[in-house]
Amino acid sequence: MKTISIGIAGLGTVAQGVLSLLAENRSLIEQRSGVSVHVVRVASRSAKPGVDLHGADFSTDVMDLLSDSRIELIVELIGGEGLAKELIVGALNSGKAVVTANKAVIALHGNELPRQALRFEAAVAGAIPIIQALQYGLVANQFSSISGIINGTCNYMLSAMEEEGVGFDEILERAQALGYAEADPTFDVDGIDAAHKLTILMALAFGTQFEFDKVYVEGIRAITPTDINYAAELGYRIKHLGILRGHADGIEARVHPTLVPHGELVAHVSGVLNAVQVVSDAAGKTLFSGPGAGGAATASAVVADIVDTALNSQRPSVDAVVDTSKAILPVAQISSAYYLRIPTRDEPGVFAEVTQILSSHNINIEAVIQKDGHDQGESVDIVLLTQDTQEAHMNKALAQLEALASVTDTVMRIRVAPQD
Amino acid sequence: MKTISIGIAGLGTVAQGVLSLLAENRSLIEQRSGVSVHVVRVASRSAKPGVDLHGADFSTDVMDLLSDSRIELIVELIGGEGLAKELIVGALNSGKAVVTANKAVIALHGNELPRQALRFEAAVAGAIPIIQALQYGLVANQFSSISGIINGTCNYMLSAMEEEGVGFDEILERAQALGYAEADPTFDVDGIDAAHKLTILMALAFGTQFEFDKVYVEGIRAITPTDINYAAELGYRIKHLGILRGHADGIEARVHPTLVPHGELVAHVSGVLNAVQVVSDAAGKTLFSGPGAGGAATASAVVADIVDTALNSQRPSVDAVVDTSKAILPVAQISSAYYLRIPTRDEPGVFAEVTQILSSHNINIEAVIQKDGHDQGESVDIVLLTQDTQEAHMNKALAQLEALASVTDTVMRIRVAPQD
Repeated sequence: MKTISIGIAGLGTVAQGVLSLLAENRSLIEQRSGVSVHVVRVASRSAKPGVDLHGADFSTDVMDLLSDSRIELIVELIGGEGLAKELIVGALNSGKAVVTANKAVIALHGNELPRQALRFEAAVAGAIPIIQALQYGLVANQFSSISGIINGTCNYMLSAMEEEGVGFDEILERAQALGYAEADPTFDVDGIDAAHKLTILMALAFGTQFEFDKVYVEGIRAITPTDINYAAELGYRIKHLGILRGHADGIEARVHPTLVPHGELVAHVSGVLNAVQVVSDAAGKTLFSGPGAGGAATASAVVADIVDTALNSQRPSVDAVVDTSKAILPVAQISSAYYLRIPTRDEPGVFAEVTQILSSHNINIEAVIQKDGHDQGESVDIVLLTQDTQEAHMNKALAQLEALASVTDTVMRIRVAPQD
Repeated sequence: MKTISIGIAGLGTVAQGVLSLLAENRSLIEQRSGVSVHVVRVASRSAKPGVDLHGADFSTDVMDLLSDSRIELIVELIGGEGLAKELIVGALNSGKAVVTANKAVIALHGNELPRQALRFEAAVAGAIPIIQALQYGLVANQFSSISGIINGTCNYMLSAMEEEGVGFDEILERAQALGYAEADPTFDVDGIDAAHKLTILMALAFGTQFEFDKVYVEGIRAITPTDINYAAELGYRIKHLGILRGHADGIEARVHPTLVPHGELVAHVSGVLNAVQVVSDAAGKTLFSGPGAGGAATASAVVADIVDTALNSQRPSVDAVVDTSKAILPVAQISSAYYLRIPTRDEPGVFAEVTQILSSHNINIEAVIQKDGHDQGESVDIVLLTQDTQEAHMNKALAQLEALASVTDTVMRIRVAPQD
C-alpha cells in the first residue's frame, strides 16, 4: 500500500467534501487504488467548530502547510488568485505536489507555475473525469475538437428559459435564490468561468500554453425566449458552449451561445449539468457528462487527483507537450453557420434587401422563418439560418444589414455548433 | 521515458488499429504519458501481406509470443474462448501482463484467471474509457447504479425501428448488410454480449466475482414498432439496457429492453453508440458515451490499457475488492415499474377485469392508453404503465391476465428504467 500525507487549504464545501469522502470511503479507496491518503493538517482562516477534521491538525494560516514537513501534497481549496497562487507556487517550489480546483489560477497563471506535480481535474467540469480521460483513457488519440457545456449556471438558466418561456432577468433571480448563480453573476453569465475551463482544456488537448486572453468570449445576457423558440422551430437548442477545434493553421477557441441540433446528445444535457464532447482520430466522438459543481462532486475529482499523484508522480506534466507552433485563431477567421434574427419593418422588399446583402458576401441561406399575420408597417423578425461562412464576411454583412432603413434594431447573431 | 515491449496476438481490424495507432501517434503518446510502446512480435494464424507490421517479427503460432523473452505484455485480440484463454493464462503465469478486448473470456472465465496484470478496458463499451473512469476518475466513489447501452447492434436496431416504423426482421437484415450485426445475430440481439459486459462492470463496480450465470438476460426480438410507438406516447424510448443496482441485501444485474424517459440523456443515445451511466455517492450521476465497436475505437482502449500497465503495474487487481457477501438478486426480487400491452377483445368490462387483477396484487396504474374507434369484438390493445411493484407480483398478475378469456394473446411486458 502506498501512503500519501496531505494538507488541505480551505474549509468550505469542497474541502468538507474531501474530508468526509476520504473518511467515509477510506477502505474502498485503499482497496481499489492501493493508495492510503492521510490528512495531517487542515488550514483555514477561521475554524469551523462543526466540521470533523478526523484527527488532522488545524492552522489558521494556510502557509503553515508549507512548513509542515510531513505533508507531501497540498490540496488548494481557498479559491481566489492571490493567496492561492502564492500557496501553490510555494508548495511546488518546496517539492510538494499540489491538487487544486482553482480554474482561475491555472487558466491565468498556469504558464508561470512549475507544473510537474500539479493536478487540477476538479477545475474543469466538476465530477466529470475529463482531464483523466484526455490524459489516460484517450491517451492514444489526437484530438480534433473538444466542446461542451462547462458552465452549469448558464445551462441551468438556458434550460429554464426554454422550459418556461421567461426572460434572462427573471431566471437569473431564481438561479441566485437557488444558489446556482452568485450575487454578482458576471463570472458565469458573461462566459468568463467557461473560458477559464476552456483555456485549461486547450492546453491539455492541443498542447498550447494557457492562453486565456486569446479565447473569444460571449455570455448569455442577450439570449431571449424568442430566440430559443425560433431555434426550436429550426430543430436546435441554444446552449452556452465552449468550443475548441484544431486546424492545420491554428486552433479555434471560443465560448458563446450556440445552436445545437436536437440530434446531438449535448442538446439534451439540461439544468446544472456539464458535458464535454471529445472528437478524436481513434475513439471518434465521445461524450462525458455529470455535475459540474457541488461539494461532493468536486471532492470526487480532488480525491481522484490525490490518488493519481500517489500512483503516477512521474507522469509528464502538460509542459512536455507544449506546441508553440499552434496559433489561436482570431474569431474573425473561424467558419460557422449562423442564426440571424433581423428585426425589420414589415414592408414589401425588405426580405429581398436582406438576401441581396447576404448574397453579396457569398453567404447562402439554409432555412428561413417568416411569420405572417402582421399588419403592414409593424416590426417583424426575419429569422435565417445560413450555411457555413467566414465570421469576417458575416461581420461585414451584419454591418450592412444594420445600416438598412428597414432594419429596426440590432441583428441577433448566434453561431451554430460545428458538425464534428 | 518508460518503455514497454509488447506482442500482439491476432491481425484483424482491432489489431491493425492498434498497430497503426501506435505508429501514427507514437510521439504524441510518448509525450503525453512518458511511455514508449514497442511492438516486437505479431502472431496470427495467417499473414496479411497488406498490413504494415512496422518492423515487428511475425509468427503464425500465437504461442510464440509466450516464448519471446523480450515481450513484457501480450495484447490478446484473437477472440473466442479456447486458444485466447490458453494464451492469456500462459502469459499471466509466465509473468507477462495481458491486455485483451475479449469480453467472453473475462466474463466467463475471469474468476479462474490470475488478474493482477490483466486489463480489459476494450472489452466494455469500445472507445469509452469506462473502466478507467470507475477505477481512477471515480476512485473515491461508492457506486449505487451502473446502467447503459452496451450493445451497439441492439441500439442501432431499436433506433432504426423507431425512426422508420419497421419491424425487427427487416431491420436485422439491414444491420447485417451494414456490418452492424453478425450472420448469426444471437449473441447481440439476445443480449448475451451485453450480459458479458455487464458481468465485467459488476465485478469492477460492486466487487463481485464474475457471475455471468446470475445476470438476467432478455434480448430485443419481441419488440415491435407498436410498442415503440406506445412508449413514445407515454414519454419514453425503448432501449436495450444493462442495469446494475446495489442494495443492502444484494445486487440487481439484468439486461433487457427498457422504457427510458425522454428526460434522461440515455434516451437520446442513438444508432450504434454505447453509453454508460454511473450513479455514485460523491460524483452523482455521470454518463460516458461513444462508439462501442470498430477497429480504431477499440484500439484506442487497448493502447490506453498498455500505457496504464506501463504506468501502474502495481495497481491492485479486481481481486483485491471481491466482496463475496454481496448476492446477486434473482430477477423475481427486483422492483420495477412496467409497461404492459394487453391484447384484448374489445368488449365491455375487459378493462375492469384487467385492473381488478392488477389491484389484487397491489399493482397501481400510473398511465393508460386506450384507443377508440374500433368495432365491438375486434382485438384492441390495453396499454398500461404501472407504478413500482415487485417482479414476483407482476409475474403472478401476468399469469392471471393471460388466463382471461378476453385477453387474446401473450401480454407484452417491458420494464421501465429505475429512477436513479
